[in-house]
Amino acid sequence: MTTDPFPPAASGQEQEEGRLLAPRFDAAGLVTCVATDAASGEVLMVAHMNAEALARTIESGEAWYYSRSRGRLWRKGESSGHTQQVVELRVDCDQDAVWLRVRQSGAGACHTGRRSCFYRAVPLGQTEGPFGLEFRDAERAFAPEAVYGAARETK
Amino acid sequence: MTTDPFPPAASGQEQEEGRLLAPRFDAAGLVTCVATDAASGEVLMVAHMNAEALARTIESGEAWYYSRSRGRLWRKGESSGHTQQVVELRVDCDQDAVWLRVRQSGAGACHTGRRSCFYRAVPLGQTEGPFGLEFRDAERAFAPEAVYGAARETK
Repeated sequence: MTTDPFPPAASGQEQEEGRLLAPRFDAAGLVTCVATDAASGEVLMVAHMNAEALARTIESGEAWYYSRSRGRLWRKGESSGHTQQVVELRVDCDQDAVWLRVRQSGAGACHTGRRSCFYRAVPLGQTEGPFGLEFRDAERAFAPEAVYGAARETK
Repeated sequence: MTTDPFPPAASGQEQEEGRLLAPRFDAAGLVTCVATDAASGEVLMVAHMNAEALARTIESGEAWYYSRSRGRLWRKGESSGHTQQVVELRVDCDQDAVWLRVRQSGAGACHTGRRSCFYRAVPLGQTEGPFGLEFRDAERAFAPEAVYGAARETK
């Protein structure tokens, strides 16, 4: 694998209309990544990628991330078996965010055992904080202790 | 409006299983926000919210963001008229990311004139950088100069 396959971030016209991937990594060397279910459009998770995770994802078609909480490269599903096959990878206008449309293998994407990390809604129209949360689509698809043991794949 | 309606970020069980919105704002005071089209599931944009943008969005049901490039609070559509009506607002397991399902008013979400900011794909299986980009769903839905004039709504 090429170790640094990314040119310096461009700006203006080249960044927005160019045909070369030149990600705008932040000060920590990361871009934001959204993974959605390729069939349903549901947002499964929001995580981050460093240059190596992004390059490995492009090359392999399998989702790799950089775990900020664990400070290391992370192949999604490496502990749980719940890998993500990438159907399409897109980049946004200013090249600091990536969108993966994935086929989620196994029961779910979230380390809490749910299919998606977004299992709570904030009802709209609340006019004063603290704001309450409601659980939605929050059934556990798997038991995290059984799947991960001590090796929880936190983002 | 309450100026600080958010309790300090929780951790562990309370963060993941609690019924109170206690966002984990980053060092710059921001959370990541993904907006998808409520009907199609398409990712329209990835942007950021500070506490005020998040509170205003919850209270009004209309999307507010914090523009990092312009360093200020930003009501989506304030220049273009391309507002976002929020159908549902969700928060993720560790409360550092928000997902808005929106009805996008007007022609598009992206300041370049496209419906979505994600109008370029990175073909998978490329084994060496620099990686090429392909335009997809990239027709312009509106002419940005005509809609924004000098006041481009960059995130």
